[in-house]
Amino acid sequence: MENLVDKIVSEVLNRQGRETTTIIAQPGISRPNYQREKGKERLLGITAPESGNKPGPSFAPQLNPSGTLFTVSMKPPVKINTGFTPMEENIEVKAEVRKSEITEKSFGQAKFIGVSAGNTVGYVIPNLEPDLGQYLQVNRNLRAIGVISSRIGAAVQIMAADEAVKKTNSELIRLELARDELGGPGHGVFALFAAEDVADVIRAVEIALMATEEYYQNIKNTPAGKIETHYTARAAAALNKTFGAPLNQAFGIIIGAPAGIGLLMSDTALKTAHVTPVSFWGPSVAQAFANEVWLTVTGDSAAVKNALEAAREVGMQVLAEFRA
Amino acid sequence: MENLVDKIVSEVLNRQGRETTTIIAQPGISRPNYQREKGKERLLGITAPESGNKPGPSFAPQLNPSGTLFTVSMKPPVKINTGFTPMEENIEVKAEVRKSEITEKSFGQAKFIGVSAGNTVGYVIPNLEPDLGQYLQVNRNLRAIGVISSRIGAAVQIMAADEAVKKTNSELIRLELARDELGGPGHGVFALFAAEDVADVIRAVEIALMATEEYYQNIKNTPAGKIETHYTARAAAALNKTFGAPLNQAFGIIIGAPAGIGLLMSDTALKTAHVTPVSFWGPSVAQAFANEVWLTVTGDSAAVKNALEAAREVGMQVLAEFRA
Amino acid sequence: MENLVDKIVSEVLNRQGRETTTIIAQPGISRPNYQREKGKERLLGITAPESGNKPGPSFAPQLNPSGTLFTVSMKPPVKINTGFTPMEENIEVKAEVRKSEITEKSFGQAKFIGVSAGNTVGYVIPNLEPDLGQYLQVNRNLRAIGVISSRIGAAVQIMAADEAVKKTNSELIRLELARDELGGPGHGVFALFAAEDVADVIRAVEIALMATEEYYQNIKNTPAGKIETHYTARAAAALNKTFGAPLNQAFGIIIGAPAGIGLLMSDTALKTAHVTPVSFWGPSVAQAFANEVWLTVTGDSAAVKNALEAAREVGMQVLAEFRA
Repeated sequence: MENLVDKIVSEVLNRQGRETTTIIAQPGISRPNYQREKGKERLLGITAPESGNKPGPSFAPQLNPSGTLFTVSMKPPVKINTGFTPMEENIEVKAEVRKSEITEKSFGQAKFIGVSAGNTVGYVIPNLEPDLGQYLQVNRNLRAIGVISSRIGAAVQIMAADEAVKKTNSELIRLELARDELGGPGHGVFALFAAEDVADVIRAVEIALMATEEYYQNIKNTPAGKIETHYTARAAAALNKTFGAPLNQAFGIIIGAPAGIGLLMSDTALKTAHVTPVSFWGPSVAQAFANEVWLTVTGDSAAVKNALEAAREVGMQVLAEFRA
Repeated sequence: MENLVDKIVSEVLNRQGRETTTIIAQPGISRPNYQREKGKERLLGITAPESGNKPGPSFAPQLNPSGTLFTVSMKPPVKINTGFTPMEENIEVKAEVRKSEITEKSFGQAKFIGVSAGNTVGYVIPNLEPDLGQYLQVNRNLRAIGVISSRIGAAVQIMAADEAVKKTNSELIRLELARDELGGPGHGVFALFAAEDVADVIRAVEIALMATEEYYQNIKNTPAGKIETHYTARAAAALNKTFGAPLNQAFGIIIGAPAGIGLLMSDTALKTAHVTPVSFWGPSVAQAFANEVWLTVTGDSAAVKNALEAAREVGMQVLAEFRA
Repeated sequence: MENLVDKIVSEVLNRQGRETTTIIAQPGISRPNYQREKGKERLLGITAPESGNKPGPSFAPQLNPSGTLFTVSMKPPVKINTGFTPMEENIEVKAEVRKSEITEKSFGQAKFIGVSAGNTVGYVIPNLEPDLGQYLQVNRNLRAIGVISSRIGAAVQIMAADEAVKKTNSELIRLELARDELGGPGHGVFALFAAEDVADVIRAVEIALMATEEYYQNIKNTPAGKIETHYTARAAAALNKTFGAPLNQAFGIIIGAPAGIGLLMSDTALKTAHVTPVSFWGPSVAQAFANEVWLTVTGDSAAVKNALEAAREVGMQVLAEFRA
């Protein structure tokens, strides 16, 4: 009889769990193919720390109907820099281009690293208060935390974070989107890095601030809207966690605002080049109600670049129609 | 024994389904009367495309805790224009008033239609990429998609969409709200039309852009807040889907920002005229956290007009108190 | 056999209920200690009016994935002003400081009370329309409603509401956060007071408007971000409902924007003074996707003040780095 009870409870919870996952995690989006399903599992398979203590067979993952894209209880980081750096991702931070200012100084126990484009600030807390660590679901053993936080942008800093984890022994452990952009249509970002060694976190924040300055130049703003495209020759762990990007593949992000411009850019990109969509966001709770469409794509390096170029061109044409 | 299992599972899922529906679909709102319950069912009864494939007896509908008000897998549209057009809804788009610019041109395969007030853009994709169609839950058989997207407004474009579906053989199949309005208290909108015939979609987008210009004049903005009232003599399918408006009845929308102004306008409207409330929104996930109260009402044509006028008057009085 | 059915259904619903509560009520936040759990229960234990009519053993509470922090079906208010007023909370509203204008006048049946800092408006509806009362989940017996609504601020008005309920025979019965602040990183607020006696509600709104002016001076805005700290020597019912603040204890709020500045302020506060965290918000659906971190703390009066001062100082240092 107890077997029966377990069987029924399992079945109900299991069905409910799948339902709930779909509702909360991917509002308004049906993911068409297997590859994307895998990306989704990768993104959603993350287990919140407390769920290990729960009784019972099969619970809905604790997905947050929030701006929190993911939180991970960090395992000891594994060096994922393979030593091979294709030319395209070799970001050259020139003195005349960079507006990021790395001005390390101590604010109490915290190490202030600097500022960058988009009102982005970066700092490191060598020993995060345990109470805050629990609120933020940070693994208790790894308390050196790097923070990248901004009023403007999200894709810019996510791309920059990918550079940072690629080149250091650190991990992007939490990513939250706010609805901000100083009155613009998009986001502000709140991202946490962690590592066992404070020096790794400091280096990660430095790289992220400098790369933010670079990627920021891919944004075209007008009073009517915004278009934004980003490319990397080789996606690393940060893009994988955020979008389900296949590791070590060419990867692109296409963003247009208001959302309709992003949809036209997305359609044009997919019609122009042989690329595979990885993720799609419209205005929704998952992207903090920003007035943007985000399409991410993977494929051959040349195809991804062509897709981004075509998207950018049609986006520019529409923005030009506003003459504003 | 299997019957027992089914019975229990059904009961649990059924109860849970009802619970989940209430929680996610109408945050913070208890709907007082039967008419409104019907409107709710109408709004919520829409089935997401994939749910038909699911096993099991009774699932929670896939309601999105997002800015997506609804998505429908479109049936072949039925001509709903009865040929009868009351005077009040006969929008006269005068050359000197209209700021919508219909400038059809081709952007690749897409047909750009024009722009309108509120940074609104309209275009048509004759053959939407199937991957995007799945993300957006568009019926695979109907790939001619019209898009209305804006930085400012939502009620304006929803009213305009109602004119468009009334006068063409098309349907409003998706409506998402973003939190935008260029730093104002309200929304941006992202709306999709579809039809079997591309010409119908093009005509729908043209009408929606022109009507957007007209309805936009019903907005009164000040640095302190905003008031907005809209009236139609005969609600059609777009207002029915969005708010549960009774078809072919007089219908009004009352909006005030910040939210408290909208509540005072709503109370005044209901005290002044014998109208029936259809829907109510405060700041919530359902309206993308806009700082607005929206009340919609139905009733006699004269009563609805009186309610809107009284709401507008008290809203103006409060805004005047800010002298800002 | 029916017992078995009940047992299973109860168990499933019970487990699911706990799950759902966690997911929706506290996105992204694991609450570390017992005291905070109690605060959570206090906040979440509120029963929506209609849930009393539901059949069945154990339902998930109707938590709203919205900007609604709480709604209560009000019991007859109990005078909670103990007559004892410590010096620190004795707000002196000086003529030269106050920018709140109390200009009571009648707008129809409603009594307009005045305006205050942050585009805050206050008024009283002596007899709220029953339909709106049901939408807003206001107890039918208590229809005198006071409204505080603003484009800017939330903590300011919550602190002010605490003063108001402390000094009058009224209750804060509903609190909604919108994403607003006129393009800034934070909120607008929509708060409802109620009492049996209209005079109490009028007095509550007057006090709240005047106190809003005072607390507003605790905000420091720059183009880069914002810092904000608030202190009270004795938390009352409004702070208890909103954050789970222990009644009659010293209590402080620490806010920084963008969110990363708030986290650094929070870490500094907890490292500086022996205070106990009460609640923590990052950008999330619970705080309407504002780009802010909110930490609230309790403890000795001196410790809370020290924590706030240290937080403010480090926040100022970071904002200064932007030189913007």
